[in-house]
Amino acid sequence: MTDIVFRDAALADLVASVSLLADDALGRQRENLTLPLDPAYVAAFEAIAADANQRLIVAVDGDTIAGTLQLSFIPGISRRGAWRGQIEAVRIAASRRGTGLGRQMIEWAVAQCAARGCSLVQLTTDKTRPDAQRFYASLGFVASHEGLKRQI
Amino acid sequence: MTDIVFRDAALADLVASVSLLADDALGRQRENLTLPLDPAYVAAFEAIAADANQRLIVAVDGDTIAGTLQLSFIPGISRRGAWRGQIEAVRIAASRRGTGLGRQMIEWAVAQCAARGCSLVQLTTDKTRPDAQRFYASLGFVASHEGLKRQI
Repeated sequence: MTDIVFRDAALADLVASVSLLADDALGRQRENLTLPLDPAYVAAFEAIAADANQRLIVAVDGDTIAGTLQLSFIPGISRRGAWRGQIEAVRIAASRRGTGLGRQMIEWAVAQCAARGCSLVQLTTDKTRPDAQRFYASLGFVASHEGLKRQI
Repeated sequence: MTDIVFRDAALADLVASVSLLADDALGRQRENLTLPLDPAYVAAFEAIAADANQRLIVAVDGDTIAGTLQLSFIPGISRRGAWRGQIEAVRIAASRRGTGLGRQMIEWAVAQCAARGCSLVQLTTDKTRPDAQRFYASLGFVASHEGLKRQI
C-alpha cells in the first residue's frame, strides 16, 4: 500500500478512469468505453481541470491506475459559511478491492478537504450497494440524509 | 405567485438569506444571526459570487425575501461526462410555507440546471424531515441514494 500515489488525473489517464467507472454493475449501463472516447468525457475532463474547485483524482501504483474519485469543494452560506467537500465517482480496480486501497483513498480525500478548509465531507451512495454503505460507515460517515436524484 | 422573482442574491440579501436558514429546527442550531454577520458568511457569499458554477438564489416578492436556495453546477466524467445540478440550503419563509412557492422555486431551479446542460439534479434532505421527502418525491425526485456526511 505504501507505493500508492494519489494525484490529479492527466488527460492520458482518462481512458483508465472511465474504464474503472464502467467496471461495475451500475456503471456498465451508464458508460461508453468505445474508443476513441466519446468527446463528452474529454469535455468533462477539461471542465474539471479548468475549475479550481474540482479535482479528478487517480490512485496510481507504478504505471497502473488502481482507483479514481472526484473531489468537489463547494462554498455555501449554510452552517456558518462552511465549505463542503464532496466525493463522487469512487471506484477501485476489481483486482484491488478488499486490499484497503479504498479506505486509504477516502482518507486521503478527506484530508484534502480538511486542507481546503472544509468542515464537512459528503457523498451519496446508491442504496443497492450495501457493501459501500458499510464501508463508509466504518470510515465515520453518517447516513443522516436521503440522497435524491431527478433525471432531466 | 405570479409576482415572485427568482434571482441571484446580492450582498444586501445576505442577512435575509441567513435568517431563512436559521428559521428552522435544524438551522437554528447551526447558524449565527448576531449582527454584524459573522464574516464567514460574507466570505462564503463572495466565494459563491466569484464562482461561475455556484449561485445563491433568492425568491423575491416585492421587497420581501420569501425563499432561498443554492445551486451548484458540477462537471464530472461519470454518466458519459454528465453535468449535475445540485441544490442545497433550501428554505421558504415560514409565512409562505404551504403556498406552492417551494414547488415553484424548485421547478425554477431544475429549469436552470437544464439550461446549463445538466442531465441530473441532485440534493440531499435530512431524514428527520419527512415532509421534505414527500415534497421532493412529488416533484419527481427519487430517493435512490443514501446521503452520507462526515464532520471534519
